[in-house]
Amino acid sequence: MDITIPKGTKDLTPEEMITRQHVFLVLQGLFESYGYNPLETPCLERVDVLASKYTGGSEILKETFKLKDQGGRDLGLRYDLTVPLARYITMHPNVKLPFKRYQMGPVFRDGPIKAGRMRQFWQCDVDVVGTTSMIADAELLALTEQAFTTLGILVSIKVNNRKLLDGLLVEAGVPKSLLEVTILSIDKLAKIGEAGVKEELQRHQLTPAMMQRIFSLFSVTAKEPLAMLDELSGKLKDEQGKQGIHELRELFCFADFFGIKSLVLDVTLARGLAYYTSTVFEAFVPDGTFQSSLAGGGRYDEMIGNLLGTKQAYPAVGISFGIEPISLVMQQQHGIKKSVVQVYVIPIGTMAASVRIVQELRQQDIHVDIALGKKGVSRHLEYADSYQIPYVILVGEDELQKQKVKLRDMRTGKEQLLNVKDVVKLVTHTA
Amino acid sequence: MDITIPKGTKDLTPEEMITRQHVFLVLQGLFESYGYNPLETPCLERVDVLASKYTGGSEILKETFKLKDQGGRDLGLRYDLTVPLARYITMHPNVKLPFKRYQMGPVFRDGPIKAGRMRQFWQCDVDVVGTTSMIADAELLALTEQAFTTLGILVSIKVNNRKLLDGLLVEAGVPKSLLEVTILSIDKLAKIGEAGVKEELQRHQLTPAMMQRIFSLFSVTAKEPLAMLDELSGKLKDEQGKQGIHELRELFCFADFFGIKSLVLDVTLARGLAYYTSTVFEAFVPDGTFQSSLAGGGRYDEMIGNLLGTKQAYPAVGISFGIEPISLVMQQQHGIKKSVVQVYVIPIGTMAASVRIVQELRQQDIHVDIALGKKGVSRHLEYADSYQIPYVILVGEDELQKQKVKLRDMRTGKEQLLNVKDVVKLVTHTA
Repeated sequence: MDITIPKGTKDLTPEEMITRQHVFLVLQGLFESYGYNPLETPCLERVDVLASKYTGGSEILKETFKLKDQGGRDLGLRYDLTVPLARYITMHPNVKLPFKRYQMGPVFRDGPIKAGRMRQFWQCDVDVVGTTSMIADAELLALTEQAFTTLGILVSIKVNNRKLLDGLLVEAGVPKSLLEVTILSIDKLAKIGEAGVKEELQRHQLTPAMMQRIFSLFSVTAKEPLAMLDELSGKLKDEQGKQGIHELRELFCFADFFGIKSLVLDVTLARGLAYYTSTVFEAFVPDGTFQSSLAGGGRYDEMIGNLLGTKQAYPAVGISFGIEPISLVMQQQHGIKKSVVQVYVIPIGTMAASVRIVQELRQQDIHVDIALGKKGVSRHLEYADSYQIPYVILVGEDELQKQKVKLRDMRTGKEQLLNVKDVVKLVTHTA
Repeated sequence: MDITIPKGTKDLTPEEMITRQHVFLVLQGLFESYGYNPLETPCLERVDVLASKYTGGSEILKETFKLKDQGGRDLGLRYDLTVPLARYITMHPNVKLPFKRYQMGPVFRDGPIKAGRMRQFWQCDVDVVGTTSMIADAELLALTEQAFTTLGILVSIKVNNRKLLDGLLVEAGVPKSLLEVTILSIDKLAKIGEAGVKEELQRHQLTPAMMQRIFSLFSVTAKEPLAMLDELSGKLKDEQGKQGIHELRELFCFADFFGIKSLVLDVTLARGLAYYTSTVFEAFVPDGTFQSSLAGGGRYDEMIGNLLGTKQAYPAVGISFGIEPISLVMQQQHGIKKSVVQVYVIPIGTMAASVRIVQELRQQDIHVDIALGKKGVSRHLEYADSYQIPYVILVGEDELQKQKVKLRDMRTGKEQLLNVKDVVKLVTHTA
């Protein structure tokens, strides 16, 4: 039998997982410090919930894995964590708003496989449902900035507002019916450039005059966000566009309260999804060494209410951290670790005493493994080396009689006789 | 549209997830301290890998969710984390042994729904592949004991050896062809009692003489494990049975090195799965307040080699922690928490200053939320109360002028004027 993994999926080896777990722990800690509670929804959802026209749209439905349970019910594997959140709110109408939750888990898309695009990948979402306050948007930006600072990744965060973008396009003469396709094209600006976008827009029947007007409205000379907004304000008559400018002014003011430093106003930022209604943002590596965005999100004030089919508004704003690109950047910038083990203990005919030492070190929160089997010391050292374990302890009778162990630094080969307390100090200090 | 969740699945609400996350963090920390590295495999596997006769058997295959990808490939949702581990080893033949890994994630079984039996549930597995040393088995028992101690749950750990159990049954005259069904019945001893087991065994064509002999062999008078093994040793001639006794003696000796206190030798412990070959164990709440086992596992020395189809042996031993029963016991014994938030800050016309206080508290690792919108103070207090947030800070102009805030203890209603540093001390101290 041919033992393989399904096409488009991959195992995460220990060295990949060690990076991810670190990212998870940092994010989880911050989410909770910002008052977001954990939520988990199942991987399986009903197909009719996933297919709701207010959510991802038909594009994403084509890529949904579908199956039936033994009762013949139509199920699908979730393609994101936002639709399940909307479903959760719908099924828990008494939940006190604002409801702040985070969720991390795999999502599934049965689409074409390209570099960096798998059929199962993780999402890591933070959302607050039930408030229109721009403080919530600003707080998410503060959380995003702090997350990347804690991970040691320098990012810039592009911010825009969909009402402003819509307003600029309306101002440029784009008919309402073409707004969505126009925005989808503009979303590709960073990837395919102005010429590429214009080519697409032409295919969508935008006139050369419209396109010229669009890019002229996009060009602002001011550098500071508030000055940029003043400049844009002068160009705009559209009411919705003016509302977008007002929201952005508020957002930048609140961002200041939070002391956020990495915001950039980018009036061309669109974010593909149709459900965004106001603020949109995206975090990226500013020096261009990494193409994909590392996190992104925005405000979607209508999606949940629409899914519910009620008149009650469920304004919401959220962000999704891209665990895969973040892990890749972490590996590029901070290297990899092959094992969580810090100390490898090799008993030399001293199993009982070695086990006691191992347990003593573990009590001090040191990650320890012990050599098993009857292989010689050199084979055990080879094993420790293959996993890049930084320290080995050799426990022989001689050392035990002196109440010591031999600690070998695997990077330098240097050995020293130490008691267990000093081992703890040294290892904890260099961890 | 009817917005519901698939039959047999459930959402984990924040209060359930808070308990789980605590369990996850404790387990993950211990797994790493015992030298196990994280691994992740996808939820999707190829059906032919899942259907391998060396793994779960046909019973479990009937309950496997099956689907096809867009290329028409037959896939299934994994029903456990052991088969994916075997597949991983098969696809990574150069991995250095012993290979110690842990994995936590959802598994799926499209079976009948009963209390405590869902179609998606979490498993949390720790395994070491590539060693026959009973030190590995003992280490897993030490890990298990420490996990429950850390979680504050008192458990007993039943231990047995499948070779011994097989030997006892052979000694009792059970034909080899009936060993597996006999073991499956004995596995139910705690649930259906001796009479129930005998009834089942009769249906499997065991003679009354065999049954009498089985239960007579099971009855040992000695209380200490090693004395019990001596007593059993006197009753047994079967070579495999004697090997089982030898392995158990080693295991109890090593368990002593680790200082394990909660082991109980139970010669009737079977553990259902056919792939166990030696040590088996199960952790349970000894006072009987909780029926299900909380963790269980054993040694399976042949399964991976068989799946691989090679002659190379891949001896392995592992344990699976039952996240659902553990979380239930945690909730029973330690109560629930409705929110991770420790402090809820209510600005009274002081948004800028309040945000600064919020961020200052978050820098000190306190979980803080801030009241949004224009509701009055009493509505905000109600909100904090509904989530059982222990502290509220009221930030008014008066207090700010004194460089203080008003801290309200939501359990007692007591209020005091404090500066932010003292708030940090008080909250951190009572967390």
